[in-house]
Amino acid sequence: MKEVAEAAVLSRSVCKVAVVGASGYAGEELVRLLLAHPHVDLVAATSRQFAGKTLAEIFPRFSHREKAQSLKFSDADPEQLARDAEIIFLALPHGLAGEFAKPLSQSAARVIDLSADFRLRDAQIYKEFYGHDHPAPDLSGEAVYGLPEIYRDQIRDAKLVACPGCYPTSILIPLRPLIRRRAIDRKRILITSLSGVTGAGRKIEADYLFAECNESMRPYGVPKHRHLSEIEQELSILAGEKVVIQFTPHLVPVNRGIVTTIYAELRGDVVAVDPALIFGGAYGREPFVRLLGDERLPDTKNVVGTNFIEIAWKIDKRTGRLIVMSAIDNIVKGASGQAVQCFNLMCGFPEAAGLL
Amino acid sequence: MKEVAEAAVLSRSVCKVAVVGASGYAGEELVRLLLAHPHVDLVAATSRQFAGKTLAEIFPRFSHREKAQSLKFSDADPEQLARDAEIIFLALPHGLAGEFAKPLSQSAARVIDLSADFRLRDAQIYKEFYGHDHPAPDLSGEAVYGLPEIYRDQIRDAKLVACPGCYPTSILIPLRPLIRRRAIDRKRILITSLSGVTGAGRKIEADYLFAECNESMRPYGVPKHRHLSEIEQELSILAGEKVVIQFTPHLVPVNRGIVTTIYAELRGDVVAVDPALIFGGAYGREPFVRLLGDERLPDTKNVVGTNFIEIAWKIDKRTGRLIVMSAIDNIVKGASGQAVQCFNLMCGFPEAAGLL
Amino acid sequence: MKEVAEAAVLSRSVCKVAVVGASGYAGEELVRLLLAHPHVDLVAATSRQFAGKTLAEIFPRFSHREKAQSLKFSDADPEQLARDAEIIFLALPHGLAGEFAKPLSQSAARVIDLSADFRLRDAQIYKEFYGHDHPAPDLSGEAVYGLPEIYRDQIRDAKLVACPGCYPTSILIPLRPLIRRRAIDRKRILITSLSGVTGAGRKIEADYLFAECNESMRPYGVPKHRHLSEIEQELSILAGEKVVIQFTPHLVPVNRGIVTTIYAELRGDVVAVDPALIFGGAYGREPFVRLLGDERLPDTKNVVGTNFIEIAWKIDKRTGRLIVMSAIDNIVKGASGQAVQCFNLMCGFPEAAGLL
Amino acid sequence: MKEVAEAAVLSRSVCKVAVVGASGYAGEELVRLLLAHPHVDLVAATSRQFAGKTLAEIFPRFSHREKAQSLKFSDADPEQLARDAEIIFLALPHGLAGEFAKPLSQSAARVIDLSADFRLRDAQIYKEFYGHDHPAPDLSGEAVYGLPEIYRDQIRDAKLVACPGCYPTSILIPLRPLIRRRAIDRKRILITSLSGVTGAGRKIEADYLFAECNESMRPYGVPKHRHLSEIEQELSILAGEKVVIQFTPHLVPVNRGIVTTIYAELRGDVVAVDPALIFGGAYGREPFVRLLGDERLPDTKNVVGTNFIEIAWKIDKRTGRLIVMSAIDNIVKGASGQAVQCFNLMCGFPEAAGLL
Repeated sequence: MKEVAEAAVLSRSVCKVAVVGASGYAGEELVRLLLAHPHVDLVAATSRQFAGKTLAEIFPRFSHREKAQSLKFSDADPEQLARDAEIIFLALPHGLAGEFAKPLSQSAARVIDLSADFRLRDAQIYKEFYGHDHPAPDLSGEAVYGLPEIYRDQIRDAKLVACPGCYPTSILIPLRPLIRRRAIDRKRILITSLSGVTGAGRKIEADYLFAECNESMRPYGVPKHRHLSEIEQELSILAGEKVVIQFTPHLVPVNRGIVTTIYAELRGDVVAVDPALIFGGAYGREPFVRLLGDERLPDTKNVVGTNFIEIAWKIDKRTGRLIVMSAIDNIVKGASGQAVQCFNLMCGFPEAAGLL
Repeated sequence: MKEVAEAAVLSRSVCKVAVVGASGYAGEELVRLLLAHPHVDLVAATSRQFAGKTLAEIFPRFSHREKAQSLKFSDADPEQLARDAEIIFLALPHGLAGEFAKPLSQSAARVIDLSADFRLRDAQIYKEFYGHDHPAPDLSGEAVYGLPEIYRDQIRDAKLVACPGCYPTSILIPLRPLIRRRAIDRKRILITSLSGVTGAGRKIEADYLFAECNESMRPYGVPKHRHLSEIEQELSILAGEKVVIQFTPHLVPVNRGIVTTIYAELRGDVVAVDPALIFGGAYGREPFVRLLGDERLPDTKNVVGTNFIEIAWKIDKRTGRLIVMSAIDNIVKGASGQAVQCFNLMCGFPEAAGLL
Repeated sequence: MKEVAEAAVLSRSVCKVAVVGASGYAGEELVRLLLAHPHVDLVAATSRQFAGKTLAEIFPRFSHREKAQSLKFSDADPEQLARDAEIIFLALPHGLAGEFAKPLSQSAARVIDLSADFRLRDAQIYKEFYGHDHPAPDLSGEAVYGLPEIYRDQIRDAKLVACPGCYPTSILIPLRPLIRRRAIDRKRILITSLSGVTGAGRKIEADYLFAECNESMRPYGVPKHRHLSEIEQELSILAGEKVVIQFTPHLVPVNRGIVTTIYAELRGDVVAVDPALIFGGAYGREPFVRLLGDERLPDTKNVVGTNFIEIAWKIDKRTGRLIVMSAIDNIVKGASGQAVQCFNLMCGFPEAAGLL
Repeated sequence: MKEVAEAAVLSRSVCKVAVVGASGYAGEELVRLLLAHPHVDLVAATSRQFAGKTLAEIFPRFSHREKAQSLKFSDADPEQLARDAEIIFLALPHGLAGEFAKPLSQSAARVIDLSADFRLRDAQIYKEFYGHDHPAPDLSGEAVYGLPEIYRDQIRDAKLVACPGCYPTSILIPLRPLIRRRAIDRKRILITSLSGVTGAGRKIEADYLFAECNESMRPYGVPKHRHLSEIEQELSILAGEKVVIQFTPHLVPVNRGIVTTIYAELRGDVVAVDPALIFGGAYGREPFVRLLGDERLPDTKNVVGTNFIEIAWKIDKRTGRLIVMSAIDNIVKGASGQAVQCFNLMCGFPEAAGLL
């Protein structure tokens, strides 16, 4: 009965939220999660393309939700949104998100940004990796990197949360305890990732047409994918020194999912390192980390549609390396689900509310 | 007119061949290539399962070939085959292939084996990786590793050719010139590969059901996939010393194709190494090596259904590493096409006959 | 607050259930739905293959559910199950399900069978379509066909519910109001369906290997698929006379989903028939029927993972035909979700509990 | 030796050809076939987008062909093309193709058009189905419908060939002998087709993005798909009276292939009709028609990459209907391969040259 009582209390506690840029894959998934969230009142969803139509008209799959029948996509007016919503999710392309966040910073609304705009602390690195000046350099310092497994406490009180990229999520969670426990050589980390096609967003480009992706496998973004910037930033913070890594993403014909394989060199005596202890200590109580141990291997089909990350590992005694593998849904734990997890923390709701 | 004349001459030169184990994916593809080959007379195709049926009955897609209408699958009788065929392809599972090769070794027939049985020079390593004693250790020493890009001359005269595995093909061709030119640190080679599902053969196991593979990405065979044994053997031969590498394959929902990404550390001054020169020198005249340079990246869809390997590279100045990427069709260049390429060499036919 | 109060009341009302045959696709999905169901206490899940292992060990994707950590697969002992569970779901192959239901019929437990065994009222037709004698002919008469859109009231009180096949679900829901309203010629109904590969169950057969299904489209079961028997039975009941139809299923490389296209000839004046009125009248208040009208067309991606059926229609004035199209998830509305919908009705829970 | 001699003779006979609009899927496949064709000298390939680049640069998969290395995409200049090429293939969108054909009609060049512009004899029907005036109504009467199985003799001498659409190819070949032999009721033909995504061409639209097509099945173009116009035209010609049919296409997540299922009502005594005799009589000697009979069913994976059409049939005694099913590769037999087949006829080359 305790759970029921708790639910009753919390359900009185509803947060008004808005989603800006609700027509991309991350925006759509965010709307899906928020419509089903027990503590959310979705007051606005913006989309230039769909303005004036109801959510249900554009996304029939949501039409059983009352709110999807009544709520219409609107144009994105920051002042209006700041008046109506307590928390505003930005699911805009990088550059645009930063612009949009500026007026919001003057308001009482808290912001959860899914773009890359506030992930990097250094505007120079932003420019190097994204090819244009940072749209709101003054705000960069205020943002908290929205990875609950690292920054849970800071997220609770954040005014501006920068949700991590999908690849960084799949990489930083497994690497964090190894770096902190000094179990691996920080100078020799290599990472291979495979991503489903939604990772590119709903971009209408020839490269992402069905017949160009289906029956195709290809590396891309070699050797300097944009996500490298935030991966190295966060690893460097954890390590307390500059960390440079190798990272190669590949595009694979699935809708969703990322599998990451990390190669690390064990420090000291291989036998002395017990990844089960390290990972168990770090993540044994995390709500969305599933440790598979060294007997099973991750598979995206076990996490797609969920906010979980699977982590497995193998020590290769022949080479002295530790191979750590992870799997996530790039749109859920890699984007919208993680944003909702941050939202729950910011509002004091149960961290898994709306995510199980 | 020269080509026509040459064709006329060669078409008088027809080789009688047999395929043992013609019902797996490699066997089927081999039959497809051989039925269309201008210098081949397919005299037998064996399959216990299909014995007594014509090729056309089992594989309707071949039925426009006259030979597919007339030739029936037979049981595999080595003595009969050795009398009827000059060259015998073995597309049997490992273990069985070695057994079958024994009686053939006493005959005049030359053998092209697509299994793993004769790829390894050391029967101990065979046992370590394949889990049982070598079926024909006496023959192991006689076999030539059927990778034309390395062993072209030896293949021409070979009595027994051991065709490489699909992963090793995608790895050894790009690595060979780098090892030989001492461009990279042989002790720090890491390799990630992605393979389509036919790589597992036509195995009727739950893991390879459509709904278990589709919308799934997963590493497997970590850290000691069977193909590691032949990759390390061949790299060690090239290097003149024991080479140990890291290799992680991943299963991806496509029918065919392998993409391999190799991480190597450049020796000496990065600027001094010019992969374009190294690869161009090694492979500029190879009929089936397509060098993409450092501007384009490989994509399996450009090689599927062909005997080509695509190779691209990038130097990462941030890390001092060379990233080399390749793509092949696992069933063609990774198995049956390569077997036909070896066959052409053994018979003195144009190396690309039946493969373009 | 009304909803909260209602939830509090209902959460005290929990039903003990068991799943027999929990390792197939329908069984696994059923376990997934039941583990998340607010009014279910899953007391047993049986699987010969996995007996002794926890649900979480076999299905890591469920491991965040406490019950999945504690509950072990057991052998299927009908007497024990009847003592422990109030409602028993059978997700066994046809033939076996009927055998298993026999001892249960003597107990207090109510049974929801997902197999074909109790769908047909005529044991002769069962034998004609399934190729063996009915395993429990005495029970056939007692079963209620578990399609809530037709038999809602009977399901509430049923002792034995026979859940419809996936194709029949996608066909009977759209056809029912047309038949009842005598809008179409009952003698000239033709139906084409497309199904994803899980429709075949987790059968380990060559036909369902990834590389045999991917990049393949094929009709099968022509002209007399097993589901024809229950489609014609139910249409005949609705029509009050024997109805014979044409039905052709096709296998398509997706994991889940059925799209059905029905061709019917309009009776009387085409202009006089308004499908929007007919469908709106029949299904305007159904919780899981989504009427798309005559402007939009169904797409399986809008229903996969849900218990919804999408229905759209077009009148072709050129031919005088009405084309009705539907889409469902074959495993949810076509099997396990529908079983849970029946369960909710049988227990007096909200019909959509655990299904949104 | 006869074949060799013949080959020698023919190889002296080379035809100069050009491809206009070589960057779509049909254009690309056409270039692939023509580069490998023993009697073709490809003198031009046009593409506004790629002008100035070699074929090999844009399509690495062709780069082993010498001509792909040397030939550059050019702008489409009809006068220049007419001077340089004997036969000009048009792989342009409808509307543009007709415009382009006008100046060519004044030249000596013969034209093979893959668009819809010259398939219809009635400019009014063209306008009704394509939504704009016919671009070259004067030429419509001159065109021969490029389906060799019906118009072989006319194609040989044609100045302008209009290659059929992909769906019509899969439908007309199976229906033709049934119509001509008066075996079926012409007033009650219903057709369902499933098509792979390349059927939409290389259109850069959201509907054809990978994640919108993958794991999706959907009807479209209901009830009046554009191809209906040519299907009914050709059936009416065969029948000698106006034929109106029902046709519903579906989009399925495969790259290539069409499966068509035709429902027809047998005339007279069912027993008296023997489809095997009808189809065997009509197509027993056709080079690209593969009759499967009534025991096997078609599967696109058996025809993809080839110019074959598979045809199977079943008589359903319960309903008195004949179900005929076919499978083709929509880009080969449904477009570019058929164009090459017509080309071979026009030039007097063996009909299957370059197509096996």
